[in-house]
Amino acid sequence: MSSEHDAPDYEITAGDETVHSAWNNGLEPVQTIEPGDTVRFTCEDSTGGQLGPDSAIADVAALDVDRVHSLTGPVAVEGARPGDVLEVELLEIDHHGWGYTLVLPGEAELGLLADEFPEPELYVWEFDGDVARFVNDIEVPLDPFPGVIGVAPAEDGTHETFPPRSVGGNVDIKQLTAGSTLYLPVAVDGALFSIGDGHAAQGDGEVCGTGIETPMTVTCRFDLRSDLSIDRPQFETTGPFTPTGRDEPMYGTTGIADDLLTATRAAVRNMIDHLHDERGLERSEAYILCSAAVDLKLNEVVNAPNWVVSAYLPERLFPAGERRSI
Amino acid sequence: MSSEHDAPDYEITAGDETVHSAWNNGLEPVQTIEPGDTVRFTCEDSTGGQLGPDSAIADVAALDVDRVHSLTGPVAVEGARPGDVLEVELLEIDHHGWGYTLVLPGEAELGLLADEFPEPELYVWEFDGDVARFVNDIEVPLDPFPGVIGVAPAEDGTHETFPPRSVGGNVDIKQLTAGSTLYLPVAVDGALFSIGDGHAAQGDGEVCGTGIETPMTVTCRFDLRSDLSIDRPQFETTGPFTPTGRDEPMYGTTGIADDLLTATRAAVRNMIDHLHDERGLERSEAYILCSAAVDLKLNEVVNAPNWVVSAYLPERLFPAGERRSI
Repeated sequence: MSSEHDAPDYEITAGDETVHSAWNNGLEPVQTIEPGDTVRFTCEDSTGGQLGPDSAIADVAALDVDRVHSLTGPVAVEGARPGDVLEVELLEIDHHGWGYTLVLPGEAELGLLADEFPEPELYVWEFDGDVARFVNDIEVPLDPFPGVIGVAPAEDGTHETFPPRSVGGNVDIKQLTAGSTLYLPVAVDGALFSIGDGHAAQGDGEVCGTGIETPMTVTCRFDLRSDLSIDRPQFETTGPFTPTGRDEPMYGTTGIADDLLTATRAAVRNMIDHLHDERGLERSEAYILCSAAVDLKLNEVVNAPNWVVSAYLPERLFPAGERRSI
Repeated sequence: MSSEHDAPDYEITAGDETVHSAWNNGLEPVQTIEPGDTVRFTCEDSTGGQLGPDSAIADVAALDVDRVHSLTGPVAVEGARPGDVLEVELLEIDHHGWGYTLVLPGEAELGLLADEFPEPELYVWEFDGDVARFVNDIEVPLDPFPGVIGVAPAEDGTHETFPPRSVGGNVDIKQLTAGSTLYLPVAVDGALFSIGDGHAAQGDGEVCGTGIETPMTVTCRFDLRSDLSIDRPQFETTGPFTPTGRDEPMYGTTGIADDLLTATRAAVRNMIDHLHDERGLERSEAYILCSAAVDLKLNEVVNAPNWVVSAYLPERLFPAGERRSI
């Protein structure tokens, strides 16, 4: 099946002619391919290169948010018609050796707890092999994936890239790592596929609004599946479901409330309290670590009027001597 | 640390004098213990023995829902005061060799899709070693845990056991397996701990309203932690995060909507469609399998106005020849 080591049929490198920052089914394709073809995409970080490994907090104020997300594409797939399903095999994904996490409240209102964390923050991560280094010798395992991956919407005109849509887009599914296959519902002729918003790692939830943002190179194989009928993205994956890919010790906090978003906010707030009170992090650091490495699960959604959401912190992130033994 | 193989300090077996079906801080403790003590609880299934391995759908109509959940307890912990934290180590958990999953819409309105599945259903699972057998040779791995575990609420009077509360209760956290430690905020003198609603397995979400319900025996060690301050349950666990405890192939469906409950319902509905269209299950069977073995995750909760919830189906559940290779 795999052709990771073959040269791709096409290479598309991010540049003025090959990136866009809004969904629009009227965009001219930068390439037209046949089903079965492979494409290697090089993608800028989500800001389109406005931040780099040497950026500092002062650069955040100058960000042009209209350039987020920088998406490489669109690619037209010959023969794709509305109602078809575009199969996207993620053959190979490489980050570019650095990354950052951004907290951008204020006008952008980005973040699950934007009201409680009103100050912008920028943390530039140093990568070392398979991990990214954080404060207090914390290490976050890396397993890169595209935060944004999708096809053009049926509706004409310009559409923001922030909200995920029925045709995919900013879905932030951290399990869409190399080896995964994504199925996208095609809404327009040619499908018009675009990709970007590389994340070297992210917790389920992406709670502060960004993962470990990174430029990336992704090789995909495309196919059309007229035998499937879906109205939202579906996918096959082998994870990661934990940092090591094995059951491992986690610390969990809960949110219990009669509204799922309220319960989710409470679970994250309780994890931030835990990271601050018990693990010595500043609260803004804790918020960033949650976004990069803490996973959110729905424990029960049936015991009305209260739902349970939990946040899972891997002990593995901490230096061996500071992990809680279970 | 562990004393799984020692005799517990106390044994409490479910019976007329030792079970209750509502939270009430005025209940007389069935046992008073000291911090450090171990207790082995024997718990009926959640209906209090109204269903058994030979039950059929006709028995469901006769259920006395007021007897749900049958909880063993309460146990008073000497010295526990409001504001303390009760530490509960789950030393050993054994199911009783059989189980069932119940769909109970109608008056009880139980289930995430109760409006779409109006007919009651009962599936009695046959256990075989570490798995429970379903239709079409599907096998669900077993890893038992208490669905309900908590302490008495601060508010006087009688309170239903269905909704989880700040003091725990019906939290349905499938990772509270043997080896886990739960921290509960104490609300009344003596804490008044109770436990029940054994689940031999459950998907994150428990979407049809029940897991694989089973009687169980649980051994706990109790301690008081005046050094901690929490307002909702917290816990340490080693999983399970996947059926095998390792990253393994999963099929995922998504729900994308501007309300988390709507997105959750859509993800589950799409998984039911997938199980029906692609895997040959009846829709009611698919709903039950989702509740027993499909996990719900929050992928992103920050890209307003749309959130992404996904449902993860382990390929492992299917016979080897029917698993999708990734």
